[in-house]
Amino acid sequence: MIRLGICGYGNLGRGVELAVRQNPDFQLVAVFTRRNPENVKILTEGAVVLPISDIQSYTDKIDVLILCGGSATDLPVQGPEYAKYFNIVDSFDTHAHIPEHFRDVNEAALASGHTAVISAGWDPGMFSLNRVYADSILPDGKAYTFWGKGVSQGHSDAIRRIPGVKDARQYTVPIDAALEAVRSGKDPELTTREKHTRECFVVAEEGADLEAIRQAIVTMPNYFDEYDTTVNFITEEELKRDHSGLPHGGSVIRTGKTGEGLAHRHVIEYKLTLDSNPEFTSSVLVCCARAVYKMAQEGMRGCKTVLDIPPAYFSAKSPEELRKTML
Amino acid sequence: MIRLGICGYGNLGRGVELAVRQNPDFQLVAVFTRRNPENVKILTEGAVVLPISDIQSYTDKIDVLILCGGSATDLPVQGPEYAKYFNIVDSFDTHAHIPEHFRDVNEAALASGHTAVISAGWDPGMFSLNRVYADSILPDGKAYTFWGKGVSQGHSDAIRRIPGVKDARQYTVPIDAALEAVRSGKDPELTTREKHTRECFVVAEEGADLEAIRQAIVTMPNYFDEYDTTVNFITEEELKRDHSGLPHGGSVIRTGKTGEGLAHRHVIEYKLTLDSNPEFTSSVLVCCARAVYKMAQEGMRGCKTVLDIPPAYFSAKSPEELRKTML
Repeated sequence: MIRLGICGYGNLGRGVELAVRQNPDFQLVAVFTRRNPENVKILTEGAVVLPISDIQSYTDKIDVLILCGGSATDLPVQGPEYAKYFNIVDSFDTHAHIPEHFRDVNEAALASGHTAVISAGWDPGMFSLNRVYADSILPDGKAYTFWGKGVSQGHSDAIRRIPGVKDARQYTVPIDAALEAVRSGKDPELTTREKHTRECFVVAEEGADLEAIRQAIVTMPNYFDEYDTTVNFITEEELKRDHSGLPHGGSVIRTGKTGEGLAHRHVIEYKLTLDSNPEFTSSVLVCCARAVYKMAQEGMRGCKTVLDIPPAYFSAKSPEELRKTML
Repeated sequence: MIRLGICGYGNLGRGVELAVRQNPDFQLVAVFTRRNPENVKILTEGAVVLPISDIQSYTDKIDVLILCGGSATDLPVQGPEYAKYFNIVDSFDTHAHIPEHFRDVNEAALASGHTAVISAGWDPGMFSLNRVYADSILPDGKAYTFWGKGVSQGHSDAIRRIPGVKDARQYTVPIDAALEAVRSGKDPELTTREKHTRECFVVAEEGADLEAIRQAIVTMPNYFDEYDTTVNFITEEELKRDHSGLPHGGSVIRTGKTGEGLAHRHVIEYKLTLDSNPEFTSSVLVCCARAVYKMAQEGMRGCKTVLDIPPAYFSAKSPEELRKTML
């Protein structure tokens, strides 16, 4: 049994707890929270909820700690800090800052003799794996990543910060014509606008200037200005009824050529269609916790990413069984 | 530079030679053949063609030897034999016999201190990887593998052995309705007949009994009797003009559920569309040769499969570059 700790009990932490139920080689030992533990109800009998300040008293009771905080402010601090005491897994997803987060966690883990996996999930994570495999197999090629249709939490949050907005949900939508052009092997050059559209569902405060909100959204730099964005104003009830889920997904596609005169064309596509973004991410985190446990047992120390993990380490099955049944 | 040897110069061996041109970290040193070397023309200046009996004189001149023979009779002998002298990669694809081939190669490689990767390619190979990842992430789920549309060499050969048949080409074709039912998350139970059809293009000898040939094909045990099979008689010219390529591909799909009451559904699909089956397989073999080279340098000995290889080892790029650009 792999004894697991969860640090942070939002959508992701709860997703990890649910995933543990589907993986009988894990035992959830403790959930650590910044909230008052008395107000945090978990689903797992026998597991305890503790204030995050108690975490160091669990160093000998937990094999792997999964950090379920956010990438903006939680993980850059928690990763290096808790790698001093635990083998850890996180889902750090700010792509541009991965090298420095890796460095910080690696230093802490090497110094303390622990094993860490950062940036696990689906992007970064499973999408990254597929980018590396496909790029390696087809060096003369082009790579594309499409996201959606799915809810972008970051974009939804950005809309919520606009004056007059009560609540909002933003969907990233891949453009079918672009996807089809890529899949057909046309190797198109696609602008940001040609790859995705953005659909917004907004609940406005009473009396708010809807046109001003719409303008504030579609012209917002980085978030919306480079996209064709549609804004729909709906009621709070409609938002709750029709947009309470967190679906997501997307495709990593590589097209490449081989052979004499590069005459032969190949298309590799990895596609995810997810009802629940946090639950799927959590399921990947649990697999990475299993891998961390195995790597730690083998004496592999320091920070790793999914790119460093032998695929068999994701699995609860033995190498013999995998060769016999899955190869 | 990784110094490479190729053993066997058919479609696969030639594919490896072509793939080496696209991977500047490799140098092709020698091609070993059972044919008279004078009759084997290769494309690579500076590389030599030698009789397979000379192979042991190259133990110090080659870092990795890629075995490009067949799974029926070549690889079960060559794998254990050449793992005594070289780090090797093969594409052994008789799924049922992988455990014993693994055992034989592993014993030889461990005894001699070499590193081997067996069963590389796309199935077994990239499809296996994706089965393991998806099975691990979504333990409560169903797995499907569809092949094609593509040429099955084994089925084409089986038709050619029928009296009165001069030449033949067989396509394995996935049934769209089955694929769509799986992708939509309906978790269908599919019989062999419901997943694929088989299309045969046959050139008959002059005066042959076409109906007898048709009957011999569609009733052939294991190969055709469990499928809906169509047989088209065409001329030799038509076969050459329309069916000289070796396209293939397929999809590995896993559908699974997560969350409270397993209410959330997810679909993972890995899809290949290949103009040239042997060239794509060869491209995977070259990546595995790179991985074998790295594993050997790190002191990892014995037999491995793609399930044991950290994904970053497929790549010519450094771990730092991969983290910065691909994660």
